[in-house]
Amino acid sequence: MGKIHQHGHLYGIGVGPGDPELLTLKAVRLLGECPVVAYFCKRGGLGRARNNCAMHLTNEHIELPLVYPVTTELNHKSEEYRLSIEAFFDSAAEAVASELEAGRDVAMLNEGDAFFYGSFMHVFLRLKSRFEITVVPGVNSIMACGALLPQPLVMRDDVLTVIPGTLDDDALEASMSGSKATVIMKVGSNLERIRGVAQRLGMADRAWYVEKASLPDQKVMPLSDVSLASAPYFSMVLIPGSGERV
Amino acid sequence: MGKIHQHGHLYGIGVGPGDPELLTLKAVRLLGECPVVAYFCKRGGLGRARNNCAMHLTNEHIELPLVYPVTTELNHKSEEYRLSIEAFFDSAAEAVASELEAGRDVAMLNEGDAFFYGSFMHVFLRLKSRFEITVVPGVNSIMACGALLPQPLVMRDDVLTVIPGTLDDDALEASMSGSKATVIMKVGSNLERIRGVAQRLGMADRAWYVEKASLPDQKVMPLSDVSLASAPYFSMVLIPGSGERV
Repeated sequence: MGKIHQHGHLYGIGVGPGDPELLTLKAVRLLGECPVVAYFCKRGGLGRARNNCAMHLTNEHIELPLVYPVTTELNHKSEEYRLSIEAFFDSAAEAVASELEAGRDVAMLNEGDAFFYGSFMHVFLRLKSRFEITVVPGVNSIMACGALLPQPLVMRDDVLTVIPGTLDDDALEASMSGSKATVIMKVGSNLERIRGVAQRLGMADRAWYVEKASLPDQKVMPLSDVSLASAPYFSMVLIPGSGERV
Repeated sequence: MGKIHQHGHLYGIGVGPGDPELLTLKAVRLLGECPVVAYFCKRGGLGRARNNCAMHLTNEHIELPLVYPVTTELNHKSEEYRLSIEAFFDSAAEAVASELEAGRDVAMLNEGDAFFYGSFMHVFLRLKSRFEITVVPGVNSIMACGALLPQPLVMRDDVLTVIPGTLDDDALEASMSGSKATVIMKVGSNLERIRGVAQRLGMADRAWYVEKASLPDQKVMPLSDVSLASAPYFSMVLIPGSGERV
């Protein structure tokens, strides 16, 4: 691989929700074949995507950690933050491009699925006109969280709505209203707001809270039993469809 | 496994969208450990779920094919069909229960993810109060189809709606209307109706059609380029969010 093309090939690889056993065989093969492994991470840590793959990385791999800038002083809805993070994605994409231009194939790791609210797409959108890119799907967090529920999230003719918890109250309420089954991602500090909307809409009594799905310290409980005001970023609220479950 | 419990353990395993390389390491391990492998299939074929796993099955495995009754003479919305298929799921669940009662662990295969519109849940709901059951998440068809698009299906604050194409026109239109990103599953003979609704709602120009994602003969094209009136059951319409894609 990488021999018949002048440039390297970029693989955006979904590495699953956290349990290293939820990597696909294809992800493992590509980790063995690609000389360069790139991943986003925060300063001081290698990140969850790399953690999921640690046992498949060797000293032969060139690792390309793409370290998020520290932006805690900025409001994440501000133009200043947006410009800062866009500039970071620009430089991250260029770091990946340099490896590809040198003829090396790059495996870019992404928690969950690579193309479902994942950070890989920021690199994909910047490089798609310049390089060959393959997206390798992975087990995403909705599947990992849903697997822990005592009843199916969706079945038969259920409609499912997937909502980022970062939406403001009005958008959150408009998105949840009327949907039969609902998943709210990126819960974190939005937990209280989400619970409030679910209560107003009469959906709270069938809502579940799941934290760190597929990891040894995973938690699943009715949303009404959660005593936290805030939740880890890696948490989800799931409301199964109200249709027949027999 | 199966030794410390009187009864066997049931694993509902998502075996991915079709490419055998999209099985997870966990699925492969459990196939090696479970003496019984159960799967739904049609008469005359072993089914796609088993196909995905064929290379991991040996002569040592007890195979339990659960063959759907032939019901082509019945209207699939009729009460008669419903009773027929429910009776079939009852007997399928009992066949699995017999193996578990004999102390044998059972791996039940499910295309895509095991708990996301999957057939496994019909067995799960019938046996959950009697046996220990673990759901093992897999790569589902939305991830496999999304990986083939030239742009991300969902990113940032996109809301996603997942809709079974089997809904009637009014429910289909109500579900699609107003949603930013949309996936329509179970396309099959509903293709023309889906296209009609997408056109009425002004969503047709950003809609994609994907068939047999992850298989060697996969197809991806703009929905407007599809000349078929009907599509294979294993096809999907995907409408990426209309938000910024840069």
